[in-house]
Amino acid sequence: MCLSPGLFPDILTKDDFIVVLVDVLRATTTICTAVANGVEAIIPVASHEEARRLKSKGFLVASERDGVRLDFADFGNSALSFTRDVIGGKTLVYCTTNGTRALHLAKGASGVAIGAFINISALTEWLARQRKNVVILCSGWKNRFCLEDALFAGALTARLLDTGVFRTVCDSAHASMDLWSLAEGDAPGYIQKAAQRHRLKNLGLDDVIPYSFEFDLVTVVPVFDGEVIKGAALP
Amino acid sequence: MCLSPGLFPDILTKDDFIVVLVDVLRATTTICTAVANGVEAIIPVASHEEARRLKSKGFLVASERDGVRLDFADFGNSALSFTRDVIGGKTLVYCTTNGTRALHLAKGASGVAIGAFINISALTEWLARQRKNVVILCSGWKNRFCLEDALFAGALTARLLDTGVFRTVCDSAHASMDLWSLAEGDAPGYIQKAAQRHRLKNLGLDDVIPYSFEFDLVTVVPVFDGEVIKGAALP
Repeated sequence: MCLSPGLFPDILTKDDFIVVLVDVLRATTTICTAVANGVEAIIPVASHEEARRLKSKGFLVASERDGVRLDFADFGNSALSFTRDVIGGKTLVYCTTNGTRALHLAKGASGVAIGAFINISALTEWLARQRKNVVILCSGWKNRFCLEDALFAGALTARLLDTGVFRTVCDSAHASMDLWSLAEGDAPGYIQKAAQRHRLKNLGLDDVIPYSFEFDLVTVVPVFDGEVIKGAALP
Repeated sequence: MCLSPGLFPDILTKDDFIVVLVDVLRATTTICTAVANGVEAIIPVASHEEARRLKSKGFLVASERDGVRLDFADFGNSALSFTRDVIGGKTLVYCTTNGTRALHLAKGASGVAIGAFINISALTEWLARQRKNVVILCSGWKNRFCLEDALFAGALTARLLDTGVFRTVCDSAHASMDLWSLAEGDAPGYIQKAAQRHRLKNLGLDDVIPYSFEFDLVTVVPVFDGEVIKGAALP
């Protein structure tokens, strides 16, 4: 488990592994929502300039910086905006402060999946079927540790261990499972102290928080093939 | 709070701050012990080559790699070796896998103090008197997060907040305080799952663990002036 993109280079191994990208507030929750609501594909871009360029070519664009939708974009980063009537069947260009950068970092992996509370059961089952090592990569906030991603990483680790397919000797995994054990009774309450909760509240964007901590609202597993994000084929 | 040296560049601010370096198993516990036992000064060096060179000039040298004492060195990194009869009044050259690298990283700070459970109360009082911002820098293991340093960081943060002098809005600080709340009844028991505990056990070096989780065995605050480590003047 990698608690911040800044630590990712140090956890890489030569083994095959799947990266699970985590940015609970808000990118990976948003991506799961968009895929569940029938988006054709998501093109993650690492820069706002690239997002702007693709907007001028006619793409639907979601782009935010430090939580705020950029003026040229159709969407910011609230999962609640990505409803079926506006994104169903469309291709979406997507750029966020932390999530899409971490996604590009993970490109060297043999697979990249998108994880959030809202797809945790579908994701757990999919990962157990892959029979590969898993690295959980928390997007954090500008390379810093963030609490909400660590909570999800802990919840997912506990689920993965429960399958009997995985084991871990990773201190970050143990720490995040312990944090999750403290939070699981009331994750939105626990997260009151998180810096990102304060940032979103100050921007009037915290309405997405209860949604982001619901389990299994969707049954999709978005995967990134190095170019676009689409839902994985599920049995 | 910085949970790994790999994240340190991203938490730097322009404000004056004091870094508290943490490497509970074992460097900072060892340094506190050596200073309490009357070492004249400790010269931390970042490379084994430099340690070897200074050994040839007649210095007493502590040097280990991945837990194991190097053949040319007088000491490895077990606090239990640094008794008054062998290090009292001497200058010690010191090189460890993680601790001394993190120490050199912290050089830009307006002060660098050495923290461990064995000096936590003296350290808390000293920090409260400095009236500066504090960054707790966990040494980790080869840039990875490690559990024992996070526990100490949480214990120290809780103590600092209790003084009424400090406040924090840092997710890492909250996470580590929560981990400490789970561990404080039996820290050596909690740490059974830590990777470093397994490493030390495999090397037969885990005898230092109970000592490393004792509170307030010493009343020194070692500080690094950019060249050497000595005990801070205490009131």
